[in-house]
Amino acid sequence: MINNILILGGFGFIGTNLVEELLRRGNRNLIIFESKSVKIQNPSLLHQVKVYYGDFNNEKDIEAIFRENPVDLVIHLISTTTPSNENVIYDINTNLINTIKLLDLMRRFSVKKIIFPSSGGVVYGVSEKSQFKESNMTNPVCSYGIIKLTIEKYLQQYKYLYDIDYLILRPSNPFGEYHNSTKQGFINVALNNIVNHKKITIWGDGSVIRDYIYIKDVVKIITELIDQGISNEIFNIGSGIGYSLNDLLKIFQEKIGTFEIEHIISRKFDLPCVTLNVEKVQSFIKNLKHTPIEEGIIKTYNWLKQNSNKNR
Amino acid sequence: MINNILILGGFGFIGTNLVEELLRRGNRNLIIFESKSVKIQNPSLLHQVKVYYGDFNNEKDIEAIFRENPVDLVIHLISTTTPSNENVIYDINTNLINTIKLLDLMRRFSVKKIIFPSSGGVVYGVSEKSQFKESNMTNPVCSYGIIKLTIEKYLQQYKYLYDIDYLILRPSNPFGEYHNSTKQGFINVALNNIVNHKKITIWGDGSVIRDYIYIKDVVKIITELIDQGISNEIFNIGSGIGYSLNDLLKIFQEKIGTFEIEHIISRKFDLPCVTLNVEKVQSFIKNLKHTPIEEGIIKTYNWLKQNSNKNR
Repeated sequence: MINNILILGGFGFIGTNLVEELLRRGNRNLIIFESKSVKIQNPSLLHQVKVYYGDFNNEKDIEAIFRENPVDLVIHLISTTTPSNENVIYDINTNLINTIKLLDLMRRFSVKKIIFPSSGGVVYGVSEKSQFKESNMTNPVCSYGIIKLTIEKYLQQYKYLYDIDYLILRPSNPFGEYHNSTKQGFINVALNNIVNHKKITIWGDGSVIRDYIYIKDVVKIITELIDQGISNEIFNIGSGIGYSLNDLLKIFQEKIGTFEIEHIISRKFDLPCVTLNVEKVQSFIKNLKHTPIEEGIIKTYNWLKQNSNKNR
Repeated sequence: MINNILILGGFGFIGTNLVEELLRRGNRNLIIFESKSVKIQNPSLLHQVKVYYGDFNNEKDIEAIFRENPVDLVIHLISTTTPSNENVIYDINTNLINTIKLLDLMRRFSVKKIIFPSSGGVVYGVSEKSQFKESNMTNPVCSYGIIKLTIEKYLQQYKYLYDIDYLILRPSNPFGEYHNSTKQGFINVALNNIVNHKKITIWGDGSVIRDYIYIKDVVKIITELIDQGISNEIFNIGSGIGYSLNDLLKIFQEKIGTFEIEHIISRKFDLPCVTLNVEKVQSFIKNLKHTPIEEGIIKTYNWLKQNSNKNR
């Protein structure tokens, strides 16, 4: 079992869920790197992990961790941007260049493996296909996706040249507990609006189709891939099932109750339909079960309701 | 006919040949942007073009050109690096970020089209294939190739979002007149060594196979694609024929004379065999003829011999 794991951004949405799952599955030495401004959503974790606070833009902050701790695996969950095209150069500087600096530190300190979530939602980009396999062409049309793809290429290069193992994950649209963004992630943003008696915003006519996956399923898959020691592969991580925004609204109505909606004009980089072919990860993890979307939605809604005051 | 053309790096290897060909084919308004330190190899061109000297790292230097001139097409021939992995962050800062700044200036000044040479030699990367089509997977294993690919993706993004047309060229290994590098480009470096009675350096056992194309053929293709108004396509630009270093040595012996060689250890990112499938460009340009490699080599050797004193 890989024991010494550094999780960059370990108290974020994926991070908090992943830390819980890693601890649930075994006694590991987890080190979390987070920004000082992070809101720690599950404070009980603080007793079970070692925490470094710092700035991902400051290489010295990361270097200190490697100097002071043995690290077998880095899980790099930091992203400074969300899918958008507003500031390409900021995206390059903070995500791409900082990740190269991280890889160079890993070389220097002989850290052997990195796990990186790319994006199943935007990395494939425009295509006549609507369900994507890992081997399909990648033509992202937003800077967020281009930089995710470029980092994938550098991970493969660092494997080829310096033998640093990688595991690239391309998650679809995860939702669930510990997700507090009011911008990104339709299900959580919409459910949060229901909790707070606000309107739900629909981009376009609600026909865009996405592949949604409950976050607890995502972190189970990641933990299983770590425990199996899988390296140097790219995996789509999704449910494989497409739901339109209108489908989701119907589930909200049936399972939760009433709400108001408002339609606004769709963004040019919103692709009409993206779902993931998940046969590859299913072939690596036997008996992989997904939480039904209705169940995930109810759990997420209940969590948001309980945490509504805390989150605001 | 596109009339107002800005050529960034217009006095370099590809640039000088391209400017000659563009002028030969019609009376155009050519603007050259070059570094102050450039050696102008064909000074007679200075009377036929408008020249701006500046630094590609300084956005204001490029902005001034767009402010003072109508520009219909930008041909972006500047590359600050050669295939290598030595300084990834420098590569990102000087090639990728400066190209984004260029694209943003083009948006601001409503410049409608850009031509960009990517790299047919390194952009495809490691594969079991040895002849690459434009639609093949792209897995470069050197930073130079990753950045070329990333710029390709941003060009496609700027077309998609802001309707700036692109033409992406993936040249193989061009050789010929006005090529003075003593590092990159085996044929010119080797012939220059013969002229100067130096040993020819062979990486590895001389079995690596590449697709070489005479530069005058390259610039004819580019000019033809411009004149036909082809946009938003990616083209391999090569001969489609593979020659090993040992094949080239044999041609040098037969056509030029004797020389000494030295073998040094091959670099990890040197792929064993790269040739380009050039059917796509052949389908766009009827009766495309390539200069036989022996003829190109003799012309290049004669040019190097004539310019040997000037170049040293």
